[in-house]
Amino acid sequence: MHKLEFVKDKNMASIIQPKILKGFRDFLPDQEINRKEITTTLTEVYESYGFVPIDTPVLEYTEILLGKGSGETDKQIYRFNDNGGRDVSMRFDLTVPFARFMAQYHNDLQLPFKRYHISKVWRGENTQKGRYREFTQCDFDIVGTDNAESDYEILSIMNKSFEKLGIKNIEFKISHRGIFNKMLESLNLSENLSDILRTVDKLAKIGIAATQAELTAITNDKEKTAKILEYIQAEGNFLHTLDKIEALSGGESEHSLRLRKIYEYLQAEEIADNFIIDPSITRGLDYYTGIVYETFFKDLPSIGSVCSGGRYNNLASLYTKQELPGVGSSIGLDRLIAALQELDLISSKPSKTECIILNFDSKLKKEYFKLATRLREAGIKTEVFLDDKKLGPQLNFAEKKSIPTAIICGEDEIQQGFFTLKNIKERNNIKVEKFDNLIEEIKKILK
Amino acid sequence: MHKLEFVKDKNMASIIQPKILKGFRDFLPDQEINRKEITTTLTEVYESYGFVPIDTPVLEYTEILLGKGSGETDKQIYRFNDNGGRDVSMRFDLTVPFARFMAQYHNDLQLPFKRYHISKVWRGENTQKGRYREFTQCDFDIVGTDNAESDYEILSIMNKSFEKLGIKNIEFKISHRGIFNKMLESLNLSENLSDILRTVDKLAKIGIAATQAELTAITNDKEKTAKILEYIQAEGNFLHTLDKIEALSGGESEHSLRLRKIYEYLQAEEIADNFIIDPSITRGLDYYTGIVYETFFKDLPSIGSVCSGGRYNNLASLYTKQELPGVGSSIGLDRLIAALQELDLISSKPSKTECIILNFDSKLKKEYFKLATRLREAGIKTEVFLDDKKLGPQLNFAEKKSIPTAIICGEDEIQQGFFTLKNIKERNNIKVEKFDNLIEEIKKILK
Repeated sequence: MHKLEFVKDKNMASIIQPKILKGFRDFLPDQEINRKEITTTLTEVYESYGFVPIDTPVLEYTEILLGKGSGETDKQIYRFNDNGGRDVSMRFDLTVPFARFMAQYHNDLQLPFKRYHISKVWRGENTQKGRYREFTQCDFDIVGTDNAESDYEILSIMNKSFEKLGIKNIEFKISHRGIFNKMLESLNLSENLSDILRTVDKLAKIGIAATQAELTAITNDKEKTAKILEYIQAEGNFLHTLDKIEALSGGESEHSLRLRKIYEYLQAEEIADNFIIDPSITRGLDYYTGIVYETFFKDLPSIGSVCSGGRYNNLASLYTKQELPGVGSSIGLDRLIAALQELDLISSKPSKTECIILNFDSKLKKEYFKLATRLREAGIKTEVFLDDKKLGPQLNFAEKKSIPTAIICGEDEIQQGFFTLKNIKERNNIKVEKFDNLIEEIKKILK
Repeated sequence: MHKLEFVKDKNMASIIQPKILKGFRDFLPDQEINRKEITTTLTEVYESYGFVPIDTPVLEYTEILLGKGSGETDKQIYRFNDNGGRDVSMRFDLTVPFARFMAQYHNDLQLPFKRYHISKVWRGENTQKGRYREFTQCDFDIVGTDNAESDYEILSIMNKSFEKLGIKNIEFKISHRGIFNKMLESLNLSENLSDILRTVDKLAKIGIAATQAELTAITNDKEKTAKILEYIQAEGNFLHTLDKIEALSGGESEHSLRLRKIYEYLQAEEIADNFIIDPSITRGLDYYTGIVYETFFKDLPSIGSVCSGGRYNNLASLYTKQELPGVGSSIGLDRLIAALQELDLISSKPSKTECIILNFDSKLKKEYFKLATRLREAGIKTEVFLDDKKLGPQLNFAEKKSIPTAIICGEDEIQQGFFTLKNIKERNNIKVEKFDNLIEEIKKILK
């Protein structure tokens, strides 16, 4: 549509080696079909809860994405000057653009505002350890409320997402930054919050001993360190753990009461068993203010969290003085798929075609196209073999693409009004009279 | 999931003005819902023909995207050096990455290969005239065949796409570069092909007189110019025009025979009336070798083509010596939506929620959540009002979001086992007993 006239040098001697950038990926059909099916399922779940889609630009002003005081992470950002001399960057997550979006439009939107956004983001990270520089996030957030009901709803969506994806053996680990902060307050360590958060966040990675050493370096107090360790290692069932961290943080608070209420809602939905409290979950980033959570495959905890988030009570403070409390979560599509592959929970499909009409007699192509149109109208994904080849290679093509059924029609079939339907997997043919019966027989095989 | 630790300067005095780059857009729910519905419909059409999705990186090596002999258009490309010093660019269309993709994987894919790709591309174009710097293309191509059947299939998909989108009054204008070339050959003007193509391509924009002047400047021959003008102005019904341009190009050829065959297939599908031959369509770019086409709203031709493409017989020649003939088309989503808006053929929906459960008695929230879960399982997109507000503002919220139904439940309703269902648009309530009846009544209102 938009035409771009650029001249390729036709006389060049050599060919350009086709290749892509490190950390970037092509998705061939067998992968992209799965990716689309997963995002379609997630979309259906989000929309079933009344969430609406939005989209934002891939490129934004760097100042918007990094804020004025950007530091270390510049190195991870795809940042450059555009042809108009503007300092621009590719988004590195969907949260920062959403914060800018809410600052800009909160007056035009009905609050509470529930949005989802499934899209790519970019970070020039070290590509070792299976990290990618282009990856997809599936975010869903509720903005404009600060209550247990909204917190619960996000957890309910997380649970429903994995249920609808057919994934069992998932564990949601939740915690509360308010209770954590209260515990630090009671130890007079509020000033060291950020450092302690970062250390605690690494517990699963570096182990108890190293965490202890790092904490003591911060607190300068072995007893305080011991208390923090006791807090973050609390375990047991949900309510038992809640009792424990409530006590360790100096008793009942609005935060612990909030967690109790959330738990009641989870119980009412009969999904409470999927949630445990893990007080070591802090989500590092210091913009979280309430519940925080991560999600693990019980059979593959090493792959890390596949869905994380929490409550932040001042989403858009960089861009507006309007306070916008929110709670949200993000599924990392790429890590989720990596986990599903490793657990053998995903099969690869090279095609979605349900029926192929073979080119048995090239004089009859017009008939094949007419038949294909009718099959499509009846809801059967149908392709016609478009080349003039022998039947063997055509069937081979169909098999390699895992197409379940084929129709073979010659002059006889057309004249006598019947169809030869092949079940490709079972390698048998049946004769079918009438179009309605054909549809029925195809649907039987597709089941 | 992926954490990025960057430090925002909390002490900064001022707020960053939330804004986006010129030529880029946010899509609020009322727009994004439409965009998603259109791309979902297109996806369904593509898949019904056996097309499969692929995806490629947004960033590629500049050499891959521009070729070795890149010229003028550098200015339109978002090009920069990444942190590893690589010369990279954001893709400016989906065809060049697809060519690179086919060069890389053609041995792994079954040919003919039918793919679709719906995604964003970027060009730093002049933003006047409603052009955007970030826009979405919906591409579909068949690679690995050079025959009338594949050409026809792309046209059939174009027709079906607009049919399924509910868009009538569409006209597909097709032409054939092979016949055009033959006409130029017969005038000994083959050497001036590119210049003549570019001039003819502007006919609709600059008019006959200017075209004539430009052509004469190229041909240096008024008679030859007259013949080109006669050719590109040929009109009438499909076969009549075909006869005429066939004669003007020196008689029957494989190209004119191909067009006849394509027309037969269109007739068999009973869609031939939507297609006309317009010999002035050339698609400028010189990589086309066979049929070319553009698509216009009959009621709004000024908006330009909303779906264009053609046959190219050497897609990936920059990257491989393997010849890969192909034919394809691309719908420009943004221009299509602009046309639909201008023609009032699209309505904006702020929400997809079908039923809202109002927070009538905040003690009953647990019941509301349980009811919402049941409604969702029954296929009703349901939200619960998550805040504690009076019923008036809640109904106002529902109305502004165009939610069609609301459920109002108090203690009485819960205890006596009935529901009060509100038809929000008609502002009337009915009492419903039993959950199954509730579903039925909601579905009646949704119809």
